[in-house]
Amino acid sequence: MKQGYCIRPGVSALPEYVPGEYRRGFIKLASNENNFGPSRKVVETLKSLADKTGLYPYREGDVRAKIAKYAGVNSENIVLGNGSDEVMDLIVKAFRGPYAGMYPSFPVYKLAAKIMGEGYVEVPYDDGFRFNARKFISKAEGAKVFFLCSPNNPTGTSISDTDLKKVLATGKLVVLDEAYVEFTGKSRASWVRKYQNLIVLRTMAKAFALAGLRIGYGIAPKEIVDILMKVKPPFNTSSFAQEAALAALEDISYMRKNVAKIRRGRDKIYNALSKKFKPVKSDSNFILFDVSPMTADEFFNKMLSKKIIVRKYGKFKGFPGEYIRVNAGTEEETEKFINAVNNI
Amino acid sequence: MKQGYCIRPGVSALPEYVPGEYRRGFIKLASNENNFGPSRKVVETLKSLADKTGLYPYREGDVRAKIAKYAGVNSENIVLGNGSDEVMDLIVKAFRGPYAGMYPSFPVYKLAAKIMGEGYVEVPYDDGFRFNARKFISKAEGAKVFFLCSPNNPTGTSISDTDLKKVLATGKLVVLDEAYVEFTGKSRASWVRKYQNLIVLRTMAKAFALAGLRIGYGIAPKEIVDILMKVKPPFNTSSFAQEAALAALEDISYMRKNVAKIRRGRDKIYNALSKKFKPVKSDSNFILFDVSPMTADEFFNKMLSKKIIVRKYGKFKGFPGEYIRVNAGTEEETEKFINAVNNI
Repeated sequence: MKQGYCIRPGVSALPEYVPGEYRRGFIKLASNENNFGPSRKVVETLKSLADKTGLYPYREGDVRAKIAKYAGVNSENIVLGNGSDEVMDLIVKAFRGPYAGMYPSFPVYKLAAKIMGEGYVEVPYDDGFRFNARKFISKAEGAKVFFLCSPNNPTGTSISDTDLKKVLATGKLVVLDEAYVEFTGKSRASWVRKYQNLIVLRTMAKAFALAGLRIGYGIAPKEIVDILMKVKPPFNTSSFAQEAALAALEDISYMRKNVAKIRRGRDKIYNALSKKFKPVKSDSNFILFDVSPMTADEFFNKMLSKKIIVRKYGKFKGFPGEYIRVNAGTEEETEKFINAVNNI
Repeated sequence: MKQGYCIRPGVSALPEYVPGEYRRGFIKLASNENNFGPSRKVVETLKSLADKTGLYPYREGDVRAKIAKYAGVNSENIVLGNGSDEVMDLIVKAFRGPYAGMYPSFPVYKLAAKIMGEGYVEVPYDDGFRFNARKFISKAEGAKVFFLCSPNNPTGTSISDTDLKKVLATGKLVVLDEAYVEFTGKSRASWVRKYQNLIVLRTMAKAFALAGLRIGYGIAPKEIVDILMKVKPPFNTSSFAQEAALAALEDISYMRKNVAKIRRGRDKIYNALSKKFKPVKSDSNFILFDVSPMTADEFFNKMLSKKIIVRKYGKFKGFPGEYIRVNAGTEEETEKFINAVNNI
């Protein structure tokens, strides 16, 4: 029998995304998770919801309104995603490529572009993983949509207001991924009122510790949100994600307390790493560091032998060094990691 | 400033999906939900998970294995989705159009196709919403992928083995949506061992009452699953969906008991409707019926005044009649609906 269907070109060649490893009984500092866990309000809400799985989610409107208030915009400026990953997918579905972004950065932008069969230009960071607006604009000239990440994953480095304004002035659609913004305290969400070509991506996975429930969002001018809503599946966020988001936003002080603890942990990790390795100054909840002349494999395995899981990058093409990323955990976990580093 | 980006053609014209309405305090029989709710095992599992929202989902492998056992195939034959809606999206991402399906049927097939900028041919059912394989194959000749639904939503009618074999013999990729298959007891999941061009879609939303958690799956030959895994986002099912699925599959007898109750409720509804309207014989948990000479609006509003929400379709293009769809609820809810119908 003749095969009467076709795989889209490029799909077979797509790279696989390798998530941070999970092992029971190990300290996991590999996925930039928030190990302090959710607010008591989230826990109580989810418990009371446990027997209500039969109903389709119906609180999207309430969640958009509450997130809008938190982000300082209006409901009509918010689109929800099954994690901010899905908002990236909605963007490439709605807006044509080619696309461009930085290297190294979050790999899902490129993956989303490739799935749509579109080109994706990667512009390398300058030394020290600093963003260079002029270089970016010049190298990404053919692209129609830019994916920027600030603070950037996995480098932890940020883009300045001046640089971001230069990029916005091109008139291209600028997607600014602020997944880790709560750890800096400095968001550009309100800029969507001024810039018609800006989409800010956020997530409740990190600061609010809702990674397992998959809820992220885009903030954009109404005209852009209206387009994204056209390609958004009707039930993309679960009822548990919706209710957890509403509860988490009732307890912002809990989130802020944990963010402060995580920042202190990150700074302790930075200081400890500085004595032996080359860490990059980070605005986020994690730190990227160069372990050379040790290899990333060697470092990863040394930590694994102490029941600690970190994220192994190895080499970044065009950059010297052997890279590992680690996030701050609870105070106790962070302390154990620092001890493990000191005893290498 | 010149706008430097482009909306994809067709996106602005996409229709909006209108979900069944939810009103607090009303009996909802509009979304084919399972109002008996989940197994106690699911409830206990979700309660114990309530404080573990911070971790990314990591049990996809376990869920694939357990679903495979339930469906009588292997893990490598299973791909998970954020609801089976997402598996439809993965299919159109991986396999080129044009596509074809029946009319009336589940609207998300066409929506997914249009989002990818592809053509979608709708072939009308024969009278009585019966499937005609010869007509379908002839009208859908230019398509590369077929979306069939059995039992079909919203008609409740099924496709026979003989007809399905005729469609499979074309060599086109056949997506058979079995969202409601537990209500018939007759699945074609095992056919993926014989047919290299078959994808069966299933969901845990209906029989297992997990609609709010968003977990569906595709069953297909390994070669097709491998392709779908390439376009699948890494964390598309939440940790809550994964754990609930695992727990629900530990209590299949609970599901079967509810399915039997729902089938009895459906048959009672059919008998009651037969006295006043023209219901379609259904293999599912819902019934489509023609309320003419009453209009669908009139019927919907009469039910609403009794605090019952049904699904209003109105006219189907090319078919005579004014259509409403209603699903069986709990015994009490079904009884209330029947009383309301009797008192029209």
